[in-house]
Amino acid sequence: MSAPGPISTDVQPERVFDWLDEEAEKRAGAGLVRRLRARTAEPGDLDLAGNDYLGLAKDKRVAGAAAAASLRWGAGSTGSRLVTGSTELHADLERELARFCGTEAALVFSSGFAANLGAVTALSGSECAIVTDKYIHASLIEGCRLSRADVAAVAHRDPAAFTHALSTRRKQRALVVTDSVFSVDGDLAPLPELWHACRAQGAALLVDDAHGFGVLGDGGRGAVHEAGLSGSPDVVTTITLSKALGAQGGAVLGPRRVIRHLVDTARSFIFDTALAPGSVAAALAALTALRAEPGLPAQVLAAATGLGARLREAGFTTSTPEAAVVSVHAPSPDEAMSWAARCAEHGVRVGCFRPPSVPDGISRLRLTARADLTESDVDTAVRVITETAPDRAR
Amino acid sequence: MSAPGPISTDVQPERVFDWLDEEAEKRAGAGLVRRLRARTAEPGDLDLAGNDYLGLAKDKRVAGAAAAASLRWGAGSTGSRLVTGSTELHADLERELARFCGTEAALVFSSGFAANLGAVTALSGSECAIVTDKYIHASLIEGCRLSRADVAAVAHRDPAAFTHALSTRRKQRALVVTDSVFSVDGDLAPLPELWHACRAQGAALLVDDAHGFGVLGDGGRGAVHEAGLSGSPDVVTTITLSKALGAQGGAVLGPRRVIRHLVDTARSFIFDTALAPGSVAAALAALTALRAEPGLPAQVLAAATGLGARLREAGFTTSTPEAAVVSVHAPSPDEAMSWAARCAEHGVRVGCFRPPSVPDGISRLRLTARADLTESDVDTAVRVITETAPDRAR
Ligand SMILES: Cc1ncc(COP(=O)(O)O)c(C=O)c1O
Ligand SMILES: Cc1ncc(COP(=O)(O)O)c(C=O)c1O
Repeated sequence: MSAPGPISTDVQPERVFDWLDEEAEKRAGAGLVRRLRARTAEPGDLDLAGNDYLGLAKDKRVAGAAAAASLRWGAGSTGSRLVTGSTELHADLERELARFCGTEAALVFSSGFAANLGAVTALSGSECAIVTDKYIHASLIEGCRLSRADVAAVAHRDPAAFTHALSTRRKQRALVVTDSVFSVDGDLAPLPELWHACRAQGAALLVDDAHGFGVLGDGGRGAVHEAGLSGSPDVVTTITLSKALGAQGGAVLGPRRVIRHLVDTARSFIFDTALAPGSVAAALAALTALRAEPGLPAQVLAAATGLGARLREAGFTTSTPEAAVVSVHAPSPDEAMSWAARCAEHGVRVGCFRPPSVPDGISRLRLTARADLTESDVDTAVRVITETAPDRAR
Repeated sequence: MSAPGPISTDVQPERVFDWLDEEAEKRAGAGLVRRLRARTAEPGDLDLAGNDYLGLAKDKRVAGAAAAASLRWGAGSTGSRLVTGSTELHADLERELARFCGTEAALVFSSGFAANLGAVTALSGSECAIVTDKYIHASLIEGCRLSRADVAAVAHRDPAAFTHALSTRRKQRALVVTDSVFSVDGDLAPLPELWHACRAQGAALLVDDAHGFGVLGDGGRGAVHEAGLSGSPDVVTTITLSKALGAQGGAVLGPRRVIRHLVDTARSFIFDTALAPGSVAAALAALTALRAEPGLPAQVLAAATGLGARLREAGFTTSTPEAAVVSVHAPSPDEAMSWAARCAEHGVRVGCFRPPSVPDGISRLRLTARADLTESDVDTAVRVITETAPDRAR
């Protein structure tokens, strides 16, 4: 839709951003205004909103490693990885991540978002067809939009739909893109079936394991490892260092030639300051902690399963958690927000996902389990969520 | 260019990424292979490559603040700014950045790259025309590609070209996008003239002040402040926390309604884990240090000017530094790389920019000045750069 009449250049400077207020009013009418609430250092609440699945963000080994690295290496990395930003810490973390997951190589980015942008764009291009699950994470969607590839988003978790799109593509090269654990409901992609579709159709597979790494697979090696796909020559995995590892940053894991290609071409790698030494060291220490306590991931899963079952029993439309994430449907964006606010007033912090963060348009409470969640925490959570529920939530 | 023949789905999994090797060979032939070299904690070299312009990355106040915040708040922020990621530290930094620069509000992102993606996309859209300088930073270009706007990239530092593109646009809304200090040569955008063009044409102005903040303007308030544009209702500034402030992260500064709009709509803000507490605290401490030592920025400028003059005297094609960045033309990508490598062997670390990091295709050594660069450092740098220069460099 272009402007109907001629363009008017006679706009007062004060009015140049008036359209933002109009958009804000529309969002307010739809219950979609977002507010930043600053958290204190010791909130004291029961946290069912964060993604610190293994409780490592404040672990002394992890936070201590961040502190020591900041003092030793400096607060920032001072440049792109290709100029001055690559420290021995970055190389250590990449080696350990690859070793842990059984891939040839790994590459650290400043965020999981940047890792996804880099992986999708560098592994596709105008001569490639991308086929994605339609519920993939926003950062993968942005990567697809930047890719210049033919992009088809197909039905959620439907291998036949992927096969169909792959077999009718108009480009020789093809890349399938999916989350392993979908971030809203915590449901799993059918990775083995998708991989078979890829093999039958000559496509590569790119999996965002942000919510699987540290939670699923042998010792927390992730959903790609659990599916037996780690180390495959046609599979690339992205992870974030900001969830189970309790730090910040992201990484791409895969064949050595893929990593080399990213170093040479991924714009979100080349043109971005390297991850801060403290965050790199924290992720490395968290990985060491995870190796030392391979039972942690199973605790997260058990806690999530228990929480989901109890909420379903209480009559809520609840996702069946296959990782740490549990979601509960809310009747509307407004009611989701006020429900979450009432939970917070009662000392239980839950996430509130509304459009555009929910691909199907249904607003939800989004709960996350942590390895250290106790029975009594779950009791409290279920009681508060039930007592504060809007009428139409059951 | 589509595949000429029919699509073959009969590709061995081992061969799915064969095209990456072909591309790697092409890059090798063109001298465009990049290598990651891990830096040690105490390199001992003269660093003319990093962007730690004020020498604050390793400053005890700054690194100490990062360490203390990691211990107090945790290594990671555990979630998006809109879920659990907003801490009091984030709010403090936003308030102080806005106060320092004289804008109504500020919003912290996980990187300067993410801040640019968020600002460009959220302030444009399909009903907007974007006019950019053709040498803008890659992260702004990615933002333009994601924007769905009509995008025109015009001649470098040419207000008349902006005016022409604005006056012939086909959308009512318009956004002008430029770097303040261009990252390759350190040259300045004509901000006052661009702003007049914007006002005459009813456009908003978005300036990436990544290399101006902390170096230019009163006490390091940046190029936008120096041009008298900070606080204008039609001007938005992005900065990075990873250069002069020695930390990691990015921020957008501008009118309150712009910041509110970003909170509600910027995908690189909403769908990204918040900046780690240690990085936030480091940036805040660096800002305090800069306030306490308002003379630091002038030292950087003097050092850069001196370095540039000496290199020009020595016969090199050298940019005229207007901030901390000085660049020296190299005859070819290969020679730029080997020249930089020889400098490193002699203890002087310089950046090496080759395509696609140089908009005009000319490979360069890229040097950065720091506030603490001594006369003798400059002597050493000029001697080493001269002695290691390829024949065709002068
Ligand atoms: C599935 C998924 N991928 C990627 C990301 C981005 O990772 P990061 O927050 O480290 O940028 C997230 C969450 O933020 C996510 O949920
Ligand atoms: C002009 C410019 N803008 C933006 C960025 C991106 O900032 P960051 O490295 O914090 O992502 C950089 C450098 O990295 C830059 O040089």
